[in-house]
Parts: sequence; structure tokens; C-alpha cells
Amino acid sequence: MKSFSLLGSTGSVGKQALDVVRAHSADFSVEGLACYSHIELLKKQIAEFSPQVVAVYDEQKAEELSSQVDIDVLSGMSGLVEIAQLESSDTLLNSLIGSIGIVPTVEAIKAKKNIALANKETLVSAGEIVMRLAQKNSVQIMPIDSEHSAVFQCLNGERREDIHKIVLTCSGGPFREQRDLSTVTKEQALKHPSWNMGKKITIDSATLMNKGLEVIEAKMLFGVDYDDIDVVIHPQSTVHSLVEFKDKSVMAHMGPADMRIPIQYALSYPSRFAHAASSLDLSSIGSLHFSSPDLDRFPCLTYAYDAGKQGGSLPCVMNAANEVAVNKFLNDEIQFLDIARFIKEKMENHTLIKNPELDELLDIDKRIKNE
Amino acid sequence: MKSFSLLGSTGSVGKQALDVVRAHSADFSVEGLACYSHIELLKKQIAEFSPQVVAVYDEQKAEELSSQVDIDVLSGMSGLVEIAQLESSDTLLNSLIGSIGIVPTVEAIKAKKNIALANKETLVSAGEIVMRLAQKNSVQIMPIDSEHSAVFQCLNGERREDIHKIVLTCSGGPFREQRDLSTVTKEQALKHPSWNMGKKITIDSATLMNKGLEVIEAKMLFGVDYDDIDVVIHPQSTVHSLVEFKDKSVMAHMGPADMRIPIQYALSYPSRFAHAASSLDLSSIGSLHFSSPDLDRFPCLTYAYDAGKQGGSLPCVMNAANEVAVNKFLNDEIQFLDIARFIKEKMENHTLIKNPELDELLDIDKRIKNE
Repeated sequence: MKSFSLLGSTGSVGKQALDVVRAHSADFSVEGLACYSHIELLKKQIAEFSPQVVAVYDEQKAEELSSQVDIDVLSGMSGLVEIAQLESSDTLLNSLIGSIGIVPTVEAIKAKKNIALANKETLVSAGEIVMRLAQKNSVQIMPIDSEHSAVFQCLNGERREDIHKIVLTCSGGPFREQRDLSTVTKEQALKHPSWNMGKKITIDSATLMNKGLEVIEAKMLFGVDYDDIDVVIHPQSTVHSLVEFKDKSVMAHMGPADMRIPIQYALSYPSRFAHAASSLDLSSIGSLHFSSPDLDRFPCLTYAYDAGKQGGSLPCVMNAANEVAVNKFLNDEIQFLDIARFIKEKMENHTLIKNPELDELLDIDKRIKNE
Repeated sequence: MKSFSLLGSTGSVGKQALDVVRAHSADFSVEGLACYSHIELLKKQIAEFSPQVVAVYDEQKAEELSSQVDIDVLSGMSGLVEIAQLESSDTLLNSLIGSIGIVPTVEAIKAKKNIALANKETLVSAGEIVMRLAQKNSVQIMPIDSEHSAVFQCLNGERREDIHKIVLTCSGGPFREQRDLSTVTKEQALKHPSWNMGKKITIDSATLMNKGLEVIEAKMLFGVDYDDIDVVIHPQSTVHSLVEFKDKSVMAHMGPADMRIPIQYALSYPSRFAHAASSLDLSSIGSLHFSSPDLDRFPCLTYAYDAGKQGGSLPCVMNAANEVAVNKFLNDEIQFLDIARFIKEKMENHTLIKNPELDELLDIDKRIKNE
């Protein structure tokens, strides 16, 4: 029986994590749940999964829910942290969206919880601090992103020093073949060709910033140089990522584009549990296609490599700027191409802090979001 | 420093194994060499690799060589066995062609040598006996075939009970797209589209019997049911094989079509040594193609599944019949399509022995070859 707490239970990954629990109810126990504000769904989840305690980030919504359920309802960041550190949980599954996920991850690591991580910002903005802390506390960080889960699986039984190159696959997003991106609408950008995901990550996939964030995450998780992380466009999302070793052997992870598989793996590791998806049938797929990313049309990918290579506070700046820009785009305040321009400007105007403390990073994040 | 003996040093795999030693001379020591009859090349190998002792299967050629070199030259099957059991070797690399490779493998296992196995017949004809013996002697069987090496690598760090399916890739051979195979010549059959290999295996690739033998080997090496071993046509030979796990995750092994990579892996395992091949560049490859095998045009694949499922002495019969038929074809005694007919006839005329001893299998093999 694996016991875990789930931050972001009403989001896309959170709901799919609970699908996994439903399919393997004898194997998992959900100790705590938390969401940002979607209390209607959280209430149903409480009824179905009987957690010990829940948290709602939004104070008012927390109060509202509290009057409707029999269990403790915590609130605010302290509520998220309490769920993250829950005594009875072995593992924290963090699928919060945005930099709000950083502090709960850090506090869970300090409480020696293993981390199933779907919150990219934790590793992008504060990756060095988080990975150092995880090592110090002998805590396992299990990636949930299909790409990093793929790399993690390719490295099963292998030695890190034998890695030659990590190759992250990228669907290319909905605009892979569209030459002019100046007329892109929000509705178009929200239609991801292969994965069923939340809004923020879907827009990030359309700008390729998602892949940029993943490049930085891969660097943090697997400790390779940025020059040894490649991105290849693979519209079918059948190959989830690859690792080349120094003998030029390449291990690739493939499978259905179903997020429940990497979520389940992060929770079941080192075991694998059965999953009901159809088997991969390469003969019916026929062909798998690969090409290079177009960095002219998708400059966000370049910005991410730049931010990663310069390091320090710059990835945090880039990430915060991206969150702000995506929100503006989703609120119809800026155009699609303005997202990259906005990020570039924030990065250029930033004075680099080489070895920032967590508090400094959180301040930077807050400042950019309040500007 | 890994010390090993090499049976079949003048054949295609043997020569490539010595290429590997050349590239990593500080890591490998060649203790013994053996070949069938090609003493001119063996003489050069003795000069370059300074083995302690060599063997030549052909008695007359052994005598001839003995007068030209300073070291002991053994001969016959007893010579091969002595090389296979050499005290100073940790590992036997067996790249003999045909059923002549069975006894040396068995004797090396009894002497507790790890086996780097390129001799398919060992596992096809006597797989159950050999695998039982390997387990009893705690001996590791490292496959050298690119397909089985791929599967072995896909299983790194995984549990056998989590395997759902093994998928062996198959180039399809030179006649993949040729409708009428009645006019196939020896020269056409010897032109393999992607791998540089010996004559026997190249013909086997043209009939798809090679894949059939590999299906039986996979069953023996990895202990899965025949119904859980699939074959998929993949002309580019970029994906060397795949394993699907019960969570529908698929691990695939890819890489350049260079036999020296799996040979090196079998010798360096569990480490990986550097290899000079170019990195896999999926963007330049562009597309990977997959389709189902055509069992009507290539019945040998069906015969192999049948032989494997019935088990007992039948795979040995099939293998011996195939060796005879390929020889006849290479000697212009029969046509290409006669190979499958010959095998089918021998299989149909055989009275199955359910649990044969090794001697019975060797007798069957000899009898079919002398008929």
C-alpha cells in the first residue's frame, strides 16, 4: 500500500492521478488533498477518496468548503505545506500549477517525503536548491512529465556517467506547420494535437516554452550539460524521449499519449502496475516522424537554453515572466507572439544573481508577477 | 580487464569482436581463439592478439597451422571445448556458425564461464537444456544478436514479471517488397539491406528464418510465452527491438546498425564502453517505418513459431533442416523457395521427442545433416 498526498487534485494531472487510484484502489491510499479554489470537485473527491485532511489555497473558498464537510479544511500556503508534510504520507504528488508549487515541494523534501513531481516550476525556478536538498535528505524525485518519466525509465539499471545525450521529444504543438504565428487565437493555441492537459501547459506547448522548461528540468533531474540535451520534433508523441549512451546505444521510451501511465509509474515505482491502455501497435502506426525544431518561429526554446546556461536567478525570471505572459494571453491582453517578446524583455532587464537563496527566488517571482 | 576466449574468430562476428578489442585494448585480454578452418587469418590474429592457445576445428588445417606458429594449436571438437573452458578466461564469446556451437557452450557453462552468445543454434536447438544449465551454474548468458541485446537492455533495471510483450524488429530482408520469390538468385539473397553479416545469417534474413530463430531464442533467454513475442517489419533497422511492460510503457533500443556495439556491450556489461559510431540523429533519419510481416511469402517465420510452441526436439529439427537447406542453396543445389519446403518436410516427417537429452538432440542434428 502506497500512501500519498496530492496537491492540485482538481487540475488535469490531479484528476488523472485519482483515476490511477481508482484503478488500483487496493494499492494506494490518499492521505491528503489540496487544490487552489475548485471546492465543488474537491468535495466530491473527499467523498470518494476519504483523505484525512484537505487544503484549499483560496482562504474564502476554504471557509466555504469547511462548512460543508466533516474533515479539517486548511487554507493558504501553510495549508498546502501541511498537506505536503503529512505524517502518514510516504510521497507527495505535487501537480500544482506555477511557482506556488515550489515551497510545498521544498517543505515535503525536508520532511523526507518522496516527491512525484508534476510541478515544473519547482525544478525550473529553484532546481539547484531543490535537487541539493533532495540529495541531502535522500529523497527520490520521480518526474511525472511524460518526457522526464521516459528519460528516468531509459536510465533504469544504467549508470549516469554512461549517458552521452538526452533527447527530449516535442510534439511541436498546434502551430508546428503554421508559418505565420501573428494571427494565432487563444482557441487555436488551446487545441493540443496529442496530449490532454491543463491550459497553462497547453499554451506553453504552443510556444515551445514547455519544452524549454523541460530542458531545464532534465538538466536538474539528470545532471547532464545543456549541450547534451537535444530536442527533436515528433508530432505523434509516440516516442516520449530518448537517452543515448556513450556506446551509441539509444534507449527510447514509447507508449500511448496517456498521462495516467507516467503518473502511475511515479507512484508505483520501482514496481509497474497494470494499465488498461491499448498496446502500442507499431504496424498500425506505420511511421514515426522526426524533425528539428524551428528556433526562429519558436524563440522561447532558445530563451530557455540561455536562461539555463546562465543559471542563477535567470530561469526563475524566465519562468515567472512566462507565467505572467501566458495569463495575459489567456485573458486576451496580449497576442500570441507577445508571449516570447514579454519573456525576452524581462530576461534582458534582469540583473543576474549567481547563487540565489530560495527567498530571493520567491521574491523575484513575486515581483515579476506584481509588476 | 576482462579476459575471454573467442570461438569463431575468423567469422563476421569474430572479426568484429576483435575490432572491439582493438578499440579497447587496455580493457580486454584475448586468452584463446578458435576457428573452423581459416588459418591464414587466424595466424594474423595470433600475431596481433597473443592468445595463450588456439584451436582449428579442421584437423588437417590445425596441423598445417601448428607448423607455422609458436603456440599450441588444438583441433576438432575437443579443441573447441578446451578453448571454451580455458582457465584464464572469465567469458566465452561463441560466434561459431551452426550446431557445432552447442557443445562448446554447454561445456563452458559447466566450467562456470559467462557466455557472450552469437551462436543462435545453441538456444534454438538446445535452449531449454542450456538455460537450465546456465541457471544451475549461475552463469550469465549475454546475447550478441542486436535484437536480443536490445531486449536485454530494455530489461535493464526491470522485473521479468512486468513484461507484457517482446517485439522483435526485422528488416524484412532484401525481398521485403518482391512479390515473386521463385526467381531469387544467391547473389540477390546475399545482399542484406542494412547489416553486414556472414553468409548463413544473410540467407536466413532473406527467408525470415533468422527472425524465426530469434523468436525461439527470445523465448529461451527471456522466458516469455510465444504469444507474447511479436515480430514487426522495420526496414531501417534503427529500432533493434522493444519490450512492452504491463503498464503499456514500451522501452525500445535504437542505434546504428553496427554489430560491434552489441558485441562490445556483451563483453563490457554491466559497464558501457565508448564506441566511435556516429550518434543517432532522428531528425536526419526523418521517419521510421513499421509494418506486419507477410507470412504467406515468408513461411519460415510461421514454422519457427510452430516448432517453438511444440517444443521438445522440433526446434532442433527445424534448425538442422534449415542449415542443410541454406547450404544446398549456397551450393546452387536448390532454389530459394525450396529452403522453406525442405524445412517443412523435415518437420512433418519428424516424430516429436518431448523432453530430449542433449545427446538425442545432437544425434537428430547429425542425422538430418547426413541424410
